[in-house]
Amino acid sequence: MTDRHAIFSAGPLGAWRITSITPYRGDTLPAAQRLDRAEADALPANPAPAWALRGVRSNLRYTNTPEHAALNAKSEGLGRPASTRAALLPITKSAAWWALAQDERRNIFEETSAHIAIGMRYLPNIARRLYHSRDLGEPVDFLTWFEFAPADEPAFNDLLAALRATHEWTYVTREVDVRLDLA
Amino acid sequence: MTDRHAIFSAGPLGAWRITSITPYRGDTLPAAQRLDRAEADALPANPAPAWALRGVRSNLRYTNTPEHAALNAKSEGLGRPASTRAALLPITKSAAWWALAQDERRNIFEETSAHIAIGMRYLPNIARRLYHSRDLGEPVDFLTWFEFAPADEPAFNDLLAALRATHEWTYVTREVDVRLDLA
Repeated sequence: MTDRHAIFSAGPLGAWRITSITPYRGDTLPAAQRLDRAEADALPANPAPAWALRGVRSNLRYTNTPEHAALNAKSEGLGRPASTRAALLPITKSAAWWALAQDERRNIFEETSAHIAIGMRYLPNIARRLYHSRDLGEPVDFLTWFEFAPADEPAFNDLLAALRATHEWTYVTREVDVRLDLA
Repeated sequence: MTDRHAIFSAGPLGAWRITSITPYRGDTLPAAQRLDRAEADALPANPAPAWALRGVRSNLRYTNTPEHAALNAKSEGLGRPASTRAALLPITKSAAWWALAQDERRNIFEETSAHIAIGMRYLPNIARRLYHSRDLGEPVDFLTWFEFAPADEPAFNDLLAALRATHEWTYVTREVDVRLDLA
């Protein structure tokens, strides 16, 4: 484990209350009351979790230099006091996606599907952090974590709808939408 | 763990005899007699190893479609009967490398340093397999594994020298050269 690793554990404990778990594609996740996000060396709050998923923050896989600069300029990061709502979206992509060469995946991701450009439209209100899970042997490929104010939840729903309408999303084989608040 | 994971364990057991361990940059690895490469669900041969390193075969990170096709066309894979020599090169790159955007790393990797083109010149004789270790929390970022016939060891040395002369290699902070044979 490194300081880039995290474990999301669902169960009786955790800062975030789970308000809904909605499968969008493929298998759902078991019901649970709360979710804990343990970063780096923090111990997971739930020792016997309903479910737990690990991920690692890693280097950029598709983002180019000007995109990276633009994202950084518009981003405010996690943990803002007004961000009392969150969403965790575990996502898996198909074997066909992973078999593509780097240029093919980049072309689908941004030139065809505008993944970065869509996310950029919702910054800084919808804060985002990506964890990679596939190479850790987890049952999902990514854990995407979003934080926002209650008033921005409709905008977050628009963001999700825009991404799900892309060609890139035809490669998504599993997606679960876990919504949370700080209650 | 998935069928893409592997554990290299050094100790008294393993198919490969370690003939030399030579640090090229940064810290070396402890001496050991033999090396075992346990792929997928195989148990490591050395339960109390002198050292052990884990890696995972993953999707292509820089290779473009025509490069991938050319590599596949020229490659013969591991385990050839004539390939009685091997090399394991654990490699770590600097924080500066990992902070670069995808296009910057690709440009250094291939447009500037011709990493794929250099490796291609030595196919099929020098077979290669790449394992990613950084996101597993290992002390190195990559495990590069090579297999070749004894007569091709000078060519393998040329390949290493060509890669070490590239701009990409200025980002390598640690590299250990472990040579092996099937004796």
